Amino acid sequence: MAAKSMHDLFADQIQDAYSAETQLTKALPKMAKAATNPELRAGFEQHLTETEGQVRRLEQIGKELNIKVTSKKCEAMEGLISEAKDIMGLGLESDVQDAGLIAAAQKVEHYEIALYGCLCTWAKRLGYTNAQTLLHQTLEEEKRTDEKLTRLAEAQVNMQAAAR
Amino acid sequence: MAAKSMHDLFADQIQDAYSAETQLTKALPKMAKAATNPELRAGFEQHLTETEGQVRRLEQIGKELNIKVTSKKCEAMEGLISEAKDIMGLGLESDVQDAGLIAAAQKVEHYEIALYGCLCTWAKRLGYTNAQTLLHQTLEEEKRTDEKLTRLAEAQVNMQAAAR
Repeated sequence: MAAKSMHDLFADQIQDAYSAETQLTKALPKMAKAATNPELRAGFEQHLTETEGQVRRLEQIGKELNIKVTSKKCEAMEGLISEAKDIMGLGLESDVQDAGLIAAAQKVEHYEIALYGCLCTWAKRLGYTNAQTLLHQTLEEEKRTDEKLTRLAEAQVNMQAAAR
Repeated sequence: MAAKSMHDLFADQIQDAYSAETQLTKALPKMAKAATNPELRAGFEQHLTETEGQVRRLEQIGKELNIKVTSKKCEAMEGLISEAKDIMGLGLESDVQDAGLIAAAQKVEHYEIALYGCLCTWAKRLGYTNAQTLLHQTLEEEKRTDEKLTRLAEAQVNMQAAAR
């Protein structure tokens, strides 16, 4: 069998992203429900809508480049979501649990920033212009979400949590 | 049982970090061995030395703050390492595999950047000054490693890989 090419690696990571985002669409409603801070809850709900859009972008890329998006399970996202569930099961005081949920969500966002960062660069190298545009839109959304979580933690949640 | 405090969340995530770093000390030699680009291989080897130092910092924090560091398994890092192994098993052309290894390593670094970012902020809020200093040192190392990987990918690896 011939050694696989850059396109194969790109396809593998598009499948990884698709699995990651679909797993996340199931986890975000639970995280929103567990959040006490109204801004955090609204943030998770808004990111669910964004994530659903990101799933559709990956489906579009799969269709254009003949990549079967459903054929892989992203084990890292499975672990990340499992950690978010652990936080919800620790019996933390509610403000502290919010701080933990933000940490869990920032780990997810950072995973996705690394993933889409690589996918964008590879799409550019491979000349997949439309895919690159779509992946860049998602990358920017993930970065904005991460920044919003940092601001919320610093302005509100951590201060309240540290008083417990 | 009383609801748990910010210290409990901090302790939980210190244990998470300890498990993540010890898992990584076992994975990095395999990633170094699989890398073809000499700079990438040397980078993984250098980061192994750094990671061993990061493990010792966490042990010191555990000792100072009475946190039993060995009592948790970081499932996210388990998933991240499993993905790195998958990359090595894809049968990719060697330059392409290097690009995949960089992506896997950047996911790991981003996970750690999110984790240590939160731990630093919490240590500050909790008044754990020495822990904050140690965690900040690690955070800076993780950021530098991520930047080095980006530079290596952009300057060398991705260009060679995309030609395959």
